[in-house]
This record gives sequence, structure tokens and C-alpha cells, in this order.
Amino acid sequence: MQVPTPYLLFLGDAPHAKTAQGVRDWRPDLCVGQLRFPGSALDMRLPEMDLEEAVAAGARSLLVGAAPAGGLLPPAWMEWIERALDLGMDIASGLHTKLNDIPSLKAKADQLGRKLHDVRHPTEDFPIGDFAFRSGKRLLTVGADCAVGKMYTALSLEREMRERGWAADFRATGQTGIFIAGQGISVDAVISDFVSAAAATLSPANDADHWDLIEGQGSLFHPAYAGVTLGLVHGSQPDAMVLCADPTRTTIGEFEYYPQPTLEACVQAYEAAAALTNKGAKVVGVSLNTSKLSEEDAADLLARTAEALQLPCVDPFRTGVGAIVDALAMQHGGAQG
Amino acid sequence: MQVPTPYLLFLGDAPHAKTAQGVRDWRPDLCVGQLRFPGSALDMRLPEMDLEEAVAAGARSLLVGAAPAGGLLPPAWMEWIERALDLGMDIASGLHTKLNDIPSLKAKADQLGRKLHDVRHPTEDFPIGDFAFRSGKRLLTVGADCAVGKMYTALSLEREMRERGWAADFRATGQTGIFIAGQGISVDAVISDFVSAAAATLSPANDADHWDLIEGQGSLFHPAYAGVTLGLVHGSQPDAMVLCADPTRTTIGEFEYYPQPTLEACVQAYEAAAALTNKGAKVVGVSLNTSKLSEEDAADLLARTAEALQLPCVDPFRTGVGAIVDALAMQHGGAQG
Repeated sequence: MQVPTPYLLFLGDAPHAKTAQGVRDWRPDLCVGQLRFPGSALDMRLPEMDLEEAVAAGARSLLVGAAPAGGLLPPAWMEWIERALDLGMDIASGLHTKLNDIPSLKAKADQLGRKLHDVRHPTEDFPIGDFAFRSGKRLLTVGADCAVGKMYTALSLEREMRERGWAADFRATGQTGIFIAGQGISVDAVISDFVSAAAATLSPANDADHWDLIEGQGSLFHPAYAGVTLGLVHGSQPDAMVLCADPTRTTIGEFEYYPQPTLEACVQAYEAAAALTNKGAKVVGVSLNTSKLSEEDAADLLARTAEALQLPCVDPFRTGVGAIVDALAMQHGGAQG
Repeated sequence: MQVPTPYLLFLGDAPHAKTAQGVRDWRPDLCVGQLRFPGSALDMRLPEMDLEEAVAAGARSLLVGAAPAGGLLPPAWMEWIERALDLGMDIASGLHTKLNDIPSLKAKADQLGRKLHDVRHPTEDFPIGDFAFRSGKRLLTVGADCAVGKMYTALSLEREMRERGWAADFRATGQTGIFIAGQGISVDAVISDFVSAAAATLSPANDADHWDLIEGQGSLFHPAYAGVTLGLVHGSQPDAMVLCADPTRTTIGEFEYYPQPTLEACVQAYEAAAALTNKGAKVVGVSLNTSKLSEEDAADLLARTAEALQLPCVDPFRTGVGAIVDALAMQHGGAQG
């Protein structure tokens, strides 16, 4: 999935815009402006633009990342999407509704030579391959649970590595990540037989000192999604994993019968799982989302966790991820610039 | 996926018919006859019938299980499929080509009120649910590798349990199994996020003494497919697992970089994985495909394996699976009839 950038962020009258916010936070250079309906409470602090202004400013895709209230695509949104096609833009959609399944829209896009990028609905075939060991270095963020900062951590690592002059690329596996990277594969929407193959395709052989920073999904401890996680672990063939967790959780998501695993159990489970395709796979650091803790409590928890696991422990938002990249520089040393 | 039975087995001029053979072997009562083109080398030892005769004999679906030479659907096959629809039959297809994607065929089926059952292409949505512990008993066949007898073993267990008067149902997770059971879910073709949910849907809560015998897929040691296997393990919530293996294999399928695991490693890995959704999950027996060994070597291997693992060890084809059902009767005892 490769989406032309830069974007005009379409907010319409959506109640939330987590995806647009993620793109705005991580790739402001890819956002020429925002398009809101009158009365919208959302603000990405970008220039207000109509479609013509956005095209003039270089926008190549209308990014429809936010879900409308109610979930269905309202006629008012359809009109803007159609007009964007007329003006020569592609549509980058994270909606559950598949734009390619709307015959009138598909016909219009085909006729104009434009594309509807339904990033939640991958359509490619992924070659199974032989899962031989690939050159280059790979880091996968893994989780105790869903929604604990795996994308944020991978992006923070990319930024930190690039600032140090390392060759590093974020590899997106979910819709927000795909919009940020301009490409990627929504692995949880891939046919199950092809998840490992998709992850391998996403992080191909590369220069010996190049790092892929692969966005993790789900958790090996999640009763519904652990299979997706395992496929991603095997296909990514990670040299290094960073374990992400939210210390305030007690259950796996809303699954009352499933308690949060200990971090120790996570390290053991991920290293055991990853060994199948990379015998050297190690958890090299911990990333905690401490946003619900005070500054003092957070610092204390990070220190205690680092001590208990003998691993660098960070909160990307509070401390940055430098300590983890320092550790990688020590372990994978000479290869870096 | 629910397919009307009985079937007319369509062999056409296919070179092989593993699926049809499986249905013929396990459910001869569901096969009213076979339809072959002149010169076909295949023979299911069923009455030769044309479509009209099959309908008169009660056939409700034309089963197109075999792949044509070359993979694409030849015009001669299309003609028979269309005529079967005209005569009031559904089509049960295991082809990679999705019959529902052929507009003329789909239109004809819709117009006649018939269904095209593309069993390789599940279309249902599966509710994620809460993965609470379900009543009833579940046995999942698991494998050291793909294609080592997981379906055959599950069907053998169903037959043995039913002969003893137990309440037992085979639950199909692959195309041949679905034709045999008349229903099921092709889990390796489900969107990855829904594999566990599909497995849970397939083996719902039941009477306390009822056994679901769930057909396993893949292997936790397979670099491409372990995620599917893990999702199936978690969703099935098995009380018992039977480990299936082919003792003559040295690698995982054709994956030269991946050696066959030991049976001990398999037991450990499957019990560890299954514990997430069923803490009592145990491997209760081993099923070896010894078809490439002499009678004497097979008997020796089964005895040595049983001794080493302290588990009943069978070859369903040579010895039947009685020893495993005996063990289940001991362990889950009083509940059985």
C-alpha cells in the first residue's frame, strides 16, 4: 500500500480524529492543510484550506482518517470525496467502509485514473518465500496488550536513530502508521495465511547497518489477537524487540477474564516466539506509557523496572528513547555510522 | 458455512481429487454418485450419474472439490456447473477461483435462488466475544507440521467416540473437512483479526459431556503459518490436544531452514500456548502417520514414542485411536455415556 503525499487532512464534522492527529504529530511536513466543516471542534493547527487551495499547495491525497459519527459515510462527505477526485487527488481512507466497494465512487476514480486507498483493506498477495535469514537489522515493538504505545515507540526510535545519522525506516502495520509512512500493510486485515509473509515483505533484506523499526500489533497474551502478533513476530524476524506496556492496566483490554501479564512473562514469551525465525532475537528495552502517573511516580517506576529487568526502560513521551538506542549501539555497535 | 447435502461428486477431467476422496472415505452416505468426463483416471467407486439422475437420487449440491489441470476453470466445467444450478442444485466449491466472483454465474445463482458455496472464501463476520470459559469439552488436533493427519485424526476420534455412544462432533477448519461435515470455517482464509473468534464460533458452549473434535491447521513451528495455528488454539479453548506428526520428515514442509521440532518440544509449546484460554489444556495423545514405515518398524516406533512421552501413541490408519479415547475416558471419566 503506497499512498501519494502530501495530504489534505479531511476532518469534516468527525467527533474525533486520532489518525489525523497522529499524522499531524509525526509528519507535519506531509500535511498541507486541514478541511473542517463549520462548527468543527477539531483543530490540527494547520492552514484551513478548501480543495482547490490544497491542490495548489501540492496536496496529492485527501486523507479521510477520522470516522464520521455513526460510522456510515454521510452524503456530505461523499460530495467532498468526489470533488477531490475531480480535482486530481487520490483518496487515502482509513474508514471501515471500503470506498472501493461504492460502485459510483470506484467508477469515478477509475475513469479519472485516480486511486482509492482503503488502507484497512489490503488487496495485495504476499509471496510466502522461504523465510531465510535476511540481511539488515530489524526491531519490532511488542506489547503486553493492545494500544500501549507500539506505534509511538517505533516512530520515536526512528526519529532518534535518524538524529544520530543511522539509516532507519519506520515500517507501518496499522492505518495511522500507514498514513504517517505513506506506505505499509494493515496486517490485522490480511488473510490469516499471509500475515507472516506480509511482515516479511514489509521488512525486506537491506544493508547490514540499516534498521527497520516495525510497528507491532496486539499481544501474545491477547485471547483474540495473539495469532496476528505471532505472525508479525515470525515474519519480522526481529533482531531486537522493545516491550511496550501500560502499567495502570489490570486486564487485557476489556477482557475481564484475562489479566495483564507481568513484564517478565512478556520478555520470556516474545523471546521464545521470535527464536523460531531469529535465534538471536532479544528484548532490548521497555517502553512504558506513564501518562496516568505523576512525574515522580513515573521516574520511580521507570527506574525500578530497569533494575528488575536489567534493561533500559523509557517513556518515549517523557524521557525519549535515547537509552534504548544507546543499548543498541553497544550491542550492534560498529555497524552504525 | 453450511452446505446442503448429499453431494454429486464432480470429478470432470481433474488429475487428482483428494477432497472428493476424503468425502468419499468419511461420508459415503453423503455421496449419491460421481460425474466423470470420458477417459477420467479417477474413480471414487460410486454410481456414475449425470446431473438429472443425481437430482432424482436426492443430490442437493454439486461438489467441485478437485482442481482442474492448470488451475483455471475450464469452459467445460462451467457448463456443468451452470446446468447443475438450472436443475436446482447448489454448488459446493473448493476451488481457488471464487465462483461468486464470476458475474454470469453469480447472477444465475441469484436468479434461481441457489447458492455458490466458496468454502475457501469465508464471508461471515465473527463476533470477538469475551473468550469466557465455555461449557462442554473440546479436543483440538495439533501438528508438528502441516499435512500430517490432523483432519484424519479428528475424524477418527469422532468415529470412535460415536461408536462408544459419546456425544461428539467433528468441527471442520479446512475445505475437505467442511465438505465432510457439511459445515465449518476455512480458518486460514479468515481475516487474521478474526481467527480466534472464528474458532470460538465453531466450537460454542455445549452440554458438559459433549466433545467437539476440532480439526487443527498448520503448526506452531511453521514460520509462515504459526499465527493461524495460535489463533485456532486460543479460540478452540481445548481441554485436550492430540499431537500429529510424520516421523519421516526432517524439515518443516519444504522450508529448508526450519527443522522438524521434537515431539517433546511440541507438547511443551502447545500446552504453553493453550494455557492462555484453558489452563487445564493437555496433550493427551500422539498420532503418527507411519505409512512410510514397515508394519514392524511402525509398531516399534509407536511403542517407543508412547514410552518416551508417557502418552498413548497411535496411527489412526493402522491401530485406530481407541487408546486415546480410553485415556480421555479415564481423565474426563464420569461425564461419558
